[in-house]
Amino acid sequence: MSSESPAPPCTDPIDDQIRELIECGRDFHRRGWSLGTSSNYSVVIDPEPLTLLMTGSGFDKGRLQPDQFVIVNENAESLDEAFPKPSAEALLHTALAKHGAGAVLHTHSVAATVLSEHFLKDGALRIEGYEMLKGLSGITTHESEAVIAIYPNTQDIAALATVIESRLQNPASPLRHGFLMAGHGLYTWGDSIAAARRQIEVLEFLFEVVTQKRLLTGSF
Amino acid sequence: MSSESPAPPCTDPIDDQIRELIECGRDFHRRGWSLGTSSNYSVVIDPEPLTLLMTGSGFDKGRLQPDQFVIVNENAESLDEAFPKPSAEALLHTALAKHGAGAVLHTHSVAATVLSEHFLKDGALRIEGYEMLKGLSGITTHESEAVIAIYPNTQDIAALATVIESRLQNPASPLRHGFLMAGHGLYTWGDSIAAARRQIEVLEFLFEVVTQKRLLTGSF
Amino acid sequence: MSSESPAPPCTDPIDDQIRELIECGRDFHRRGWSLGTSSNYSVVIDPEPLTLLMTGSGFDKGRLQPDQFVIVNENAESLDEAFPKPSAEALLHTALAKHGAGAVLHTHSVAATVLSEHFLKDGALRIEGYEMLKGLSGITTHESEAVIAIYPNTQDIAALATVIESRLQNPASPLRHGFLMAGHGLYTWGDSIAAARRQIEVLEFLFEVVTQKRLLTGSF
Amino acid sequence: MSSESPAPPCTDPIDDQIRELIECGRDFHRRGWSLGTSSNYSVVIDPEPLTLLMTGSGFDKGRLQPDQFVIVNENAESLDEAFPKPSAEALLHTALAKHGAGAVLHTHSVAATVLSEHFLKDGALRIEGYEMLKGLSGITTHESEAVIAIYPNTQDIAALATVIESRLQNPASPLRHGFLMAGHGLYTWGDSIAAARRQIEVLEFLFEVVTQKRLLTGSF
Repeated sequence: MSSESPAPPCTDPIDDQIRELIECGRDFHRRGWSLGTSSNYSVVIDPEPLTLLMTGSGFDKGRLQPDQFVIVNENAESLDEAFPKPSAEALLHTALAKHGAGAVLHTHSVAATVLSEHFLKDGALRIEGYEMLKGLSGITTHESEAVIAIYPNTQDIAALATVIESRLQNPASPLRHGFLMAGHGLYTWGDSIAAARRQIEVLEFLFEVVTQKRLLTGSF
Repeated sequence: MSSESPAPPCTDPIDDQIRELIECGRDFHRRGWSLGTSSNYSVVIDPEPLTLLMTGSGFDKGRLQPDQFVIVNENAESLDEAFPKPSAEALLHTALAKHGAGAVLHTHSVAATVLSEHFLKDGALRIEGYEMLKGLSGITTHESEAVIAIYPNTQDIAALATVIESRLQNPASPLRHGFLMAGHGLYTWGDSIAAARRQIEVLEFLFEVVTQKRLLTGSF
Repeated sequence: MSSESPAPPCTDPIDDQIRELIECGRDFHRRGWSLGTSSNYSVVIDPEPLTLLMTGSGFDKGRLQPDQFVIVNENAESLDEAFPKPSAEALLHTALAKHGAGAVLHTHSVAATVLSEHFLKDGALRIEGYEMLKGLSGITTHESEAVIAIYPNTQDIAALATVIESRLQNPASPLRHGFLMAGHGLYTWGDSIAAARRQIEVLEFLFEVVTQKRLLTGSF
Repeated sequence: MSSESPAPPCTDPIDDQIRELIECGRDFHRRGWSLGTSSNYSVVIDPEPLTLLMTGSGFDKGRLQPDQFVIVNENAESLDEAFPKPSAEALLHTALAKHGAGAVLHTHSVAATVLSEHFLKDGALRIEGYEMLKGLSGITTHESEAVIAIYPNTQDIAALATVIESRLQNPASPLRHGFLMAGHGLYTWGDSIAAARRQIEVLEFLFEVVTQKRLLTGSF
């Protein structure tokens, strides 16, 4: 954070988390998952009252600077007017954080964009039988199926956040691993930035596998 | 600029812009958008009289050096004979700068080459419905269509520059976001180098999406 | 290794090998062959009694740290409780090391995942006629065929290790170059880390060739 | 070169050329054009008597060291027994150097491997109409056709070198820009390492374009 920002509760861990999110941005940009000013990333810095550090709106993710982050409360409101504007999608981050996510990463890859558009009619992308599934939190065998929910893309983020929250609280139809917004990209989360980053890598890998299998064999 | 070059109006900002264009070249070369000596980049360093800093002709874009840039006037004429030769396409840069571009980036990607050849018959590549469209200047919802004009490739750059200028002045058929030269590549622009770079990244991403969608689903 | 670890027989060579495996992880992660916490790597540090240095379970391969390695005996048991847990697949590494491998590398690429699933019904992926085959240990002409065995993916690594060992001892049907686990990835090996790394690069290249040929020509 | 090597005519330029070839190897390895120990590179360090600096046989091109180069005469014989062994393909480098090449680069990309195998029956890969063709030495308009000869792959490099030499001397059917060995890779050359590197980048780009066009449109 810039020196003008209000002192956060404990400076050093936040600096570490800013560094880790900057490094995520650099790697995801290099891979083509966060081009332009797309994507946003966040991490919970205080669970009570819920406080998140997240990327501000409109910055290049490949070259994030410490003063391009903002600290928000559980309503995704900035804690200081000196901060940059939070992303329009900040409410999705706080919705996930309220239900246990320690860090949330949102990326825009080519594969996620195309697959989410194509499978929107089914409401989810289903992936099964691959070893890499074991990299997803809570999966311990490749004989599993990951069901990645797909929502229509929307400009009404508040409404989508409500849908996500109610789904997160529904034990009969839980939202696991991540979700896609059609023609838009992937949201995933974990206990920490490192855990969420692993989920991104695993899911993007699986999207590439689904794509490649279709190209080689003609079927999804 | 080399120490032998005539002193530019204010040295430090130009050094910064050279650094930023060198960094563009390094990244675009790494991504395969500026291989060989293809591509050229420019930035307006004085609006009145119009003066541009641009890459000289025939240099490797992945390893640009400060003395491989040239300063030109509104007619794309070099301001000093010690400068390297301007690119043959310099007139396209000045045409865009006369109509408000602060920086112009031209790249040659595989996807832009193939799509521009294929869609030349339609005069434009139309892309709609993707969230990434919001990364283009002036687009605020994914429920938009970007119309990227495609011109036949030509060796007569002066003639094409005239066409581009008249299109830029035509409110009924404005030229927005960028244009393609068939089998050649993409021109785009922005208020600053950073803004133009974002446009390149967004458009190249969308070209990949169009390509991948076609491969997966059989339709564009 | 961390300073708390038991002193290995001779420190410096192990430090070199840790550095080399860290560098493998960084490169394979960058290429997308070791995303998430997938993959594991090992090297023999003592042939008698057989002792291997290998990556611990669950670490990011793109950012391996010296204290994320473990030293195991021929039964894949950790030599010190201060070490991290060995990978579940450690028994495959020791099986290969017992039969002469000096280093074993296991990666998860998109191409290996998709091809191994597709060709599992044939029991092997057969590749012939390419110059790159000469990069495989023991092949001296492109007029050769590499037969890469494919096994069904399994959670019972001990059983698979037994199958691998019996195959390694069977002169009538030797296991050469590497093997695939369906929907999972590639195991290969060499006299040294550098030799095994070359095998990975050659085999992954050939998997890309097989994939691309199929896409271009419709046949494998 | 290692300090034990015989002093070359003038040390500093050779050091520069070693550095430049090491940098080529690093970039081509990163792009997947020189995986395993594939590829070899050379530069003329004396035209009279013809003397070339080239990569020794069997080294990783992504991590070349100064002592992995060899200096050879016009018969591709090493000038000092302390040098590593020249590549088996050294005679192709000297054949090209005898007819004017200042530097020769040979790479193994996936696209070159697959296209050269597919088009061997036609004896050449023909590419026309793309702006990038202007990056090839001697081409000044995109309304050109590059004819890249394809030879069957062979272990008899001496015989192929003779064919190449006679073709280089035949004004009725000159060998321009480069040639392919089927299922193997690309040879190209230029006045300098930088010029040959540009040719590699241009040709590899065009191979990607040909591949992508086929995938998108169904025709080459």
